Amino acid sequence: MLDRGDNLRADPAAIAALAADPAARLLRLDGIDPVLDETGHLVWGGMAEAADGADLILLGLADGRPHFAQHVPGALDAATRSAWIFKAIGMMAPGEAALYGGARSLIDWHERHGFCARCGQPTLVQRAGWGRRCPACEAEHFPRVDPVVIMLAEHEDRVLVGRQPRFPPRRYSALAGFVEPGEALEEAVARELWEEAGIRVRDVRYVASQPWPFPSSLMVACVATAEDDALTIDHTELEDAMWVPRAGVAASMAGAPDAPFLPPPDYAIANTLFRAWLGA
Amino acid sequence: MLDRGDNLRADPAAIAALAADPAARLLRLDGIDPVLDETGHLVWGGMAEAADGADLILLGLADGRPHFAQHVPGALDAATRSAWIFKAIGMMAPGEAALYGGARSLIDWHERHGFCARCGQPTLVQRAGWGRRCPACEAEHFPRVDPVVIMLAEHEDRVLVGRQPRFPPRRYSALAGFVEPGEALEEAVARELWEEAGIRVRDVRYVASQPWPFPSSLMVACVATAEDDALTIDHTELEDAMWVPRAGVAASMAGAPDAPFLPPPDYAIANTLFRAWLGA
Ligand SMILES: [Zn+2]
Ligand SMILES: [Zn+2]
Repeated sequence: MLDRGDNLRADPAAIAALAADPAARLLRLDGIDPVLDETGHLVWGGMAEAADGADLILLGLADGRPHFAQHVPGALDAATRSAWIFKAIGMMAPGEAALYGGARSLIDWHERHGFCARCGQPTLVQRAGWGRRCPACEAEHFPRVDPVVIMLAEHEDRVLVGRQPRFPPRRYSALAGFVEPGEALEEAVARELWEEAGIRVRDVRYVASQPWPFPSSLMVACVATAEDDALTIDHTELEDAMWVPRAGVAASMAGAPDAPFLPPPDYAIANTLFRAWLGA
Repeated sequence: MLDRGDNLRADPAAIAALAADPAARLLRLDGIDPVLDETGHLVWGGMAEAADGADLILLGLADGRPHFAQHVPGALDAATRSAWIFKAIGMMAPGEAALYGGARSLIDWHERHGFCARCGQPTLVQRAGWGRRCPACEAEHFPRVDPVVIMLAEHEDRVLVGRQPRFPPRRYSALAGFVEPGEALEEAVARELWEEAGIRVRDVRYVASQPWPFPSSLMVACVATAEDDALTIDHTELEDAMWVPRAGVAASMAGAPDAPFLPPPDYAIANTLFRAWLGA
């Protein structure tokens, strides 16, 4: 288990000592994408691999060894997202996917937050990569974590699934949306289902959560009970939505050729959500 | 129930029509604090009360009437937080507290995000106050919602409570901390309890969530089972922490004069969490 070493972050001397530790390891990346060995494990190099001008991010300590990632300002083409990353996530062990995901979220955040939102001046990395500060106005800035609700509405042993235009053919998943300021999770679930599908729900139940580093979401999966099943689909958000009975969800999750839809991939929390609903 | 009108936000003509509606109402504020009438309801004025140069925020539609708040750039002294606000929260109806809280979070966010974090240039309000955009680099910026876990560890029918140095005398509450990039809610609960109190937990259970507009948190309340009860308190975070048996928690929540601690106020999710634990 990784110890994030939060209590060390405010101590630059301690961080420097960790970075100078001969046992310290640096996450090897291809741009912002992971590098995996043939067994699907993350590949680590020594600290000598750090680029000139790179900012170091302390990911934590594992088995007493410091683990770092680096952010090289300006080195990323933030606009591109490779197809490889989604293959890689499916290959990685859960613990390593979370470790990599945290590093990816932080690197992306640094890349897009080089200036102070309060005064516009350039900012500097601090707290071992877990924040930035503005020398001009003294503001401190912390990495974002954006909560997202993802949910199944259920009605008479069927669940509501939807597809976005960018999905591969036949893929359907749970509906989802960002939590807004002033909302509880349960309120965000109800609002999104109303806005996207025109249904009212009650009894929102929490199922599971998962970080999702694209760029920095916290997915919160829920099930809710729909008051009725009449759909009004918002076609700016969804290409289609439909109610699927339990047997259809089971066939889809089992990969049956005549199943009503292609399910979300194993590593996505939507997959966990479908399995939890089937098991309930 | 308030319809947030999310689907209208991208349509400036629709928003202008709502703002010109004679039935439209503008939230009256004292700085960033609420103004309440003698029955504890938020006070609203007409749109003519909007200040010159103010940016309008569409809070939503209630009973068909548009409800707005305004952000007047530079008009806030962000450093001060009044004592009145916490009295006011205790007086407000839950629905109005959430509405006000959302407005407060957005106004505070605009006040501290006038510049583009990507390129440093001034940004403009868009989407009826639910975002900003940078004319220089085309980046879009969305209001933050920062997830925070707040949790009770339980061990043999006792729960762990702690106090921060800034608390009023005798006040204890549940431990809490921000969720970091790369963490699930359950992992954040386990990490915070380990860091602040030195205890390992299993079986993290979700209890409830609540927005908390200081400035823009989403509180997620959980209960977890502690592996043992030996405490190692991090005194940079906590002044004290202790295990309290069920009868002591019940006495504290009932306001008994000899209770082991003074509980968190009714409007705080920590209060909900204690009540949920007692009821379980
Ligand atoms: Zn600044
Ligand atoms: Zn910009």
